[in-house]
Amino acid sequence: MSRFFPPHIEKLAGYVPGEQPRDAGITKLNTNENPYPPSPRVAEAIARVVSGLRSYPDPVGTAFREAAARRHGVDPAMILAGNGSDDLLTILTRAFVGPGQVVAFPTPSYILYRTLAEIQDARPVEVPFDRAWKIDPAAFVRAGAKLVFLANPNSPSGTALAPAEVGALARALSCPLVVDEAYGDFAEVDCIGLVADLPNVIVTRTLSKGYSLAGLRLGYLIARPEVVQGLIKVKDSYNCDTLSLAGAVAAIEDRAYLSETRSKILATRSRLSAALRGLGYHVPESHANFVWCAAGPPASVIYEALKARRILVRLMRYPGLDDGLRITVGTDEEIDRLLDALVEIFRGSLENPGGR
Amino acid sequence: MSRFFPPHIEKLAGYVPGEQPRDAGITKLNTNENPYPPSPRVAEAIARVVSGLRSYPDPVGTAFREAAARRHGVDPAMILAGNGSDDLLTILTRAFVGPGQVVAFPTPSYILYRTLAEIQDARPVEVPFDRAWKIDPAAFVRAGAKLVFLANPNSPSGTALAPAEVGALARALSCPLVVDEAYGDFAEVDCIGLVADLPNVIVTRTLSKGYSLAGLRLGYLIARPEVVQGLIKVKDSYNCDTLSLAGAVAAIEDRAYLSETRSKILATRSRLSAALRGLGYHVPESHANFVWCAAGPPASVIYEALKARRILVRLMRYPGLDDGLRITVGTDEEIDRLLDALVEIFRGSLENPGGR
Repeated sequence: MSRFFPPHIEKLAGYVPGEQPRDAGITKLNTNENPYPPSPRVAEAIARVVSGLRSYPDPVGTAFREAAARRHGVDPAMILAGNGSDDLLTILTRAFVGPGQVVAFPTPSYILYRTLAEIQDARPVEVPFDRAWKIDPAAFVRAGAKLVFLANPNSPSGTALAPAEVGALARALSCPLVVDEAYGDFAEVDCIGLVADLPNVIVTRTLSKGYSLAGLRLGYLIARPEVVQGLIKVKDSYNCDTLSLAGAVAAIEDRAYLSETRSKILATRSRLSAALRGLGYHVPESHANFVWCAAGPPASVIYEALKARRILVRLMRYPGLDDGLRITVGTDEEIDRLLDALVEIFRGSLENPGGR
Repeated sequence: MSRFFPPHIEKLAGYVPGEQPRDAGITKLNTNENPYPPSPRVAEAIARVVSGLRSYPDPVGTAFREAAARRHGVDPAMILAGNGSDDLLTILTRAFVGPGQVVAFPTPSYILYRTLAEIQDARPVEVPFDRAWKIDPAAFVRAGAKLVFLANPNSPSGTALAPAEVGALARALSCPLVVDEAYGDFAEVDCIGLVADLPNVIVTRTLSKGYSLAGLRLGYLIARPEVVQGLIKVKDSYNCDTLSLAGAVAAIEDRAYLSETRSKILATRSRLSAALRGLGYHVPESHANFVWCAAGPPASVIYEALKARRILVRLMRYPGLDDGLRITVGTDEEIDRLLDALVEIFRGSLENPGGR
């Protein structure tokens, strides 16, 4: 590295996103992309605005704010759009946390929270989930955090705390609580209603998962207008581009399409969860577009055996915990391929238990 | 504001971008957008990738890095793409500067540098240009900065330091020098060649101006590979979206189109500069797609008189200096309209010097 970087940047491991092989022959179930294409209205909306690229975008994405506000029944002043929800998580960290201060989050969860704290030279504090994937608000209070991140639904578990449980955490805290609902479109309930009563609740959302727009980079948050006003001062002036904003408006307004693809994913998720349990895995009830397989055969062995069959799942390793596999809910065909492969791998290991 | 923000965020004024009226009847010469449309290949390239939005983009934009590297004759490992060059300026500030440390930059210049320092709770130090728009490297050294920004060509002046002058500044500094070449496509020379000899030189570029893609949000920087590697750890994982990356590759590869629109803008710039000098303005030789008018009639009066005629230019106010007008080089028709209006305004004030 260059000698110009300060020590906390020098020693950063950096966040490593999931593998993104460009090889079309791979069944890719490792990065929780939606298996269905986005609403056809997205491409139409993008085509309509492409001639306007000469000009700067609307700095706050007014049309998108209005569309998102309509979807969630809140005021547009409570919406802030970002260049993916990662942009918003970065803005929140920069706005609320200084060097040496604490950023707290549960573990195992989204590993980016640690990276965001480290970039800011802040102190990441991990608070373990209990075995039922519940949290103890008092443990977060003891951490003395300036900012708490809570992925809900959580990754890798797919589990979700009820809004009342999240509300209890928010009430216990004296700092902002970011409820990261990246997978919220696949859940039955959300925490957006908490914002009305609890000024420290900030809910983040993305169009990457539910709307199948990971390539568009468009996320948003819902918070009190005074919080949004402060964050606007911290964000880059034009953090969302013209094409993404237009595509996002079209996507969020096509509720029928979301409902249709969501139903398919939820049906496949049930089938996948049941089949994996049938194979002996412990699979918590998922509220997201992936499932978590723990307590089965060594995860790294299964990961490699699947990879050898050109099926990519995510091998998750957390210090002090057994490795697990996080499997994206793909199309029914993709999931059939996965399950066939798993049966074959399991049968092989039974027939030849010692390996060779 | 919310009580959760720390004092340095609470007191931020925030960067205020130039007015962006959506009213089509306005001659808009205030935010340095390119008056010509982008290369037609951009829309074609975007249309080709729109079906791939389901998937995450390439985290480092490999195809764009290669295209930019070919354009500038450097190694792709020396290129980093950003969500506009603002994203890169933000990443650079976060990577190199901590709270209380100094960020130095000349004044008058791009006012965002101050905002970036303030968001980071760093200390902005302005080093005045001399009357010939030259700088004294020793004054920057005395500032004790951890990061120096130098817009070159500079805004609002349009002037540019020669690469040898920039190199002398870089040699005098013990911190990174960011040479912000947002307007570099309109200049005769650039500072990219300095990177080979000077490990602290980082050149930033944007497609917003020269390539007429302000709405696309795509910028890049050129630096030593070890600097780029460090910055990759600080940037958001997927900071550039699929559409922007594809459009940017098409734009940067269409060199004939850039050359053609650039020539038109340079010809109009000469004519505009001469006409404004004829009206009595002091107009420094511009190396950008705008000109700077100082030492004429009170800038705010002219700004308002033009605005009343539906012509928008940028009224620039810097503490301790006379106000000035920064005028974007529009199409020939737009500039004719501006010059006609100015002649009319000047004649009116001569005939009726006291006003009414």
